[in-house]
Amino acid sequence: MKIALDAMGGDYAPATTVEGAVEALFENPDLSVILIGDENEIYAELKKKNYTGLQVSIKHASQTVEMDESPLAALRKKKDSSLRVAIDLVKNGHADAIVSAGNSGVVMATALHVLGKIPGIERPAIAAVMPTLKGRFVLIDAGANVDCKPVHLHQFAIMGEAYARYIFDIKSPKIGLLGIGEEDAKGNELTRETFKLLRNSKMNFLGNVEGKDIFAGEADVVVCDGFVGNIALKISEGLAEAMAKMLKREISERASGRIGYLFFKDALKNFKKKTDYSEYGGAPLLGISRPCIISHGRSTSKAIKNAVKLAANLHIKDVPDIILKEFNEGRSGREAVAIQE
Amino acid sequence: MKIALDAMGGDYAPATTVEGAVEALFENPDLSVILIGDENEIYAELKKKNYTGLQVSIKHASQTVEMDESPLAALRKKKDSSLRVAIDLVKNGHADAIVSAGNSGVVMATALHVLGKIPGIERPAIAAVMPTLKGRFVLIDAGANVDCKPVHLHQFAIMGEAYARYIFDIKSPKIGLLGIGEEDAKGNELTRETFKLLRNSKMNFLGNVEGKDIFAGEADVVVCDGFVGNIALKISEGLAEAMAKMLKREISERASGRIGYLFFKDALKNFKKKTDYSEYGGAPLLGISRPCIISHGRSTSKAIKNAVKLAANLHIKDVPDIILKEFNEGRSGREAVAIQE
Repeated sequence: MKIALDAMGGDYAPATTVEGAVEALFENPDLSVILIGDENEIYAELKKKNYTGLQVSIKHASQTVEMDESPLAALRKKKDSSLRVAIDLVKNGHADAIVSAGNSGVVMATALHVLGKIPGIERPAIAAVMPTLKGRFVLIDAGANVDCKPVHLHQFAIMGEAYARYIFDIKSPKIGLLGIGEEDAKGNELTRETFKLLRNSKMNFLGNVEGKDIFAGEADVVVCDGFVGNIALKISEGLAEAMAKMLKREISERASGRIGYLFFKDALKNFKKKTDYSEYGGAPLLGISRPCIISHGRSTSKAIKNAVKLAANLHIKDVPDIILKEFNEGRSGREAVAIQE
Repeated sequence: MKIALDAMGGDYAPATTVEGAVEALFENPDLSVILIGDENEIYAELKKKNYTGLQVSIKHASQTVEMDESPLAALRKKKDSSLRVAIDLVKNGHADAIVSAGNSGVVMATALHVLGKIPGIERPAIAAVMPTLKGRFVLIDAGANVDCKPVHLHQFAIMGEAYARYIFDIKSPKIGLLGIGEEDAKGNELTRETFKLLRNSKMNFLGNVEGKDIFAGEADVVVCDGFVGNIALKISEGLAEAMAKMLKREISERASGRIGYLFFKDALKNFKKKTDYSEYGGAPLLGISRPCIISHGRSTSKAIKNAVKLAANLHIKDVPDIILKEFNEGRSGREAVAIQE
């Protein structure tokens, strides 16, 4: 199984991408990774590592997509970018999945343009994983679609459910609609209409969920439009970071600060691990015909390693094909989706 | 200065409301509080306290608004509810401001119906206060309006700015638009249009802000529609609560847990205080002609105490009148608001 890794994507690439790939291969020697980008730069990083016996190769690409580049401009002018070449490899069957920590707008547009959507899916969506008191939940859409209709949210629910079922092994994932208030009449126009669609679907629909419910771990999949989802994700990241800093400050300000900190250090480390997004590696763009993982621009090598492993898992479980079947066999309420189309 | 307190509003009322009122009066003996609701129940709570010398009185009301009651039904059928009587007292000049921890939808609808809006303001909005690494920021709208137009968000910014200036004594409050990505072209239809209005206003507009920026304390006022704002607020509350629990668990699970916890206890307490919403007491519904504070349904007596003090402060600074002047004198870009109307 071959993963195409955009080695130039991300704030610290190619150092972190190459390191992450090598780490993933050490943990899973059956994997094969193609590093795509400037061959000299990549090789300079690779030779710092011990990669004997690992299935790693380099594919040269002469261009790089910038973080502020528009998707349209990149699609037109960057036909030999590391990202584009990586996605082309998947398209042509030379790789099974793609991972990029580059400009996420360009990753989405290129994947959509080159690989295309799963038939029936109107809009691919980002499925991010977030921690709860009990475990984790899937937030979908975490940022791909800013203005959505109820039918889109319904489809996000179907895709998120398949993801939770096959990647997290949850038999009947509980679906929550991110909203205001628990009654079905509450929310905005979009969520009130979506509520009806989800209630009529065959999914295990909990109803509206709010911040308290989701971090208590009540839902396995939390559905929202990409604007709200991205704000929820960034607020959580920002608050978790700020809280860790505030707490550190509180402890070090005390007379017993140094001794207290010794006790606290390990707990904080473990806690950070649970709320650290690099643990999840990246978020799949579900609805694309082949596995496509979008990683954070600030990805560390650990995040890249986990993203490569997640990409492999999506390919092994054949998640795109599962979504296609789920969608067409109507398990999740195809009828209601069709009415809205 | 007289505050009308809906003594029956909130999950733990009237015990917490009466206690909160007495605490506020102890701290500020110039204040006067009218407790509105069932006189027997209120008196039973009041006589448990030492209130000698405090300016506290009881006004009987025979009805109570339920937490799940619809605003329309309450407006029609509950003309002698503690909430309605409290708001009527403000309307008739017998009180200067109103505080309620009851059904927030009914509080908003009743305040709007009885007290009316500040001329020129299309929609009142909830201004909640949230903690940052540096201090705090005002989130507006935190839940009053679920479907908004750009002109509404522009008006929220004007009201939030006045609030931050007069209540938090910030000379030129920095205004951020809660969005996705920092560039002006990013966001959804609503925020892209609002961005243009705010950029053309006379306010100190920072542009789009995300989770990381807001908890770092970059903006004094964060503007969004009430759906997004309520989700942001609830996610923050939910995550802060979950994080405190996770951390406690981490520490107590360790061998040195008990000793570590001793060091950690005070730090956690202080930290909790910073992220505890009861510290802020409640959120004003800005845009209403008189000061109106909406407190959390789960308000403790401390939250009620702080809400009463905040109500008094809004009255002393005459915030509704300031908003009226700001709005009509065009300091905040009246012209752009008018174009959209």
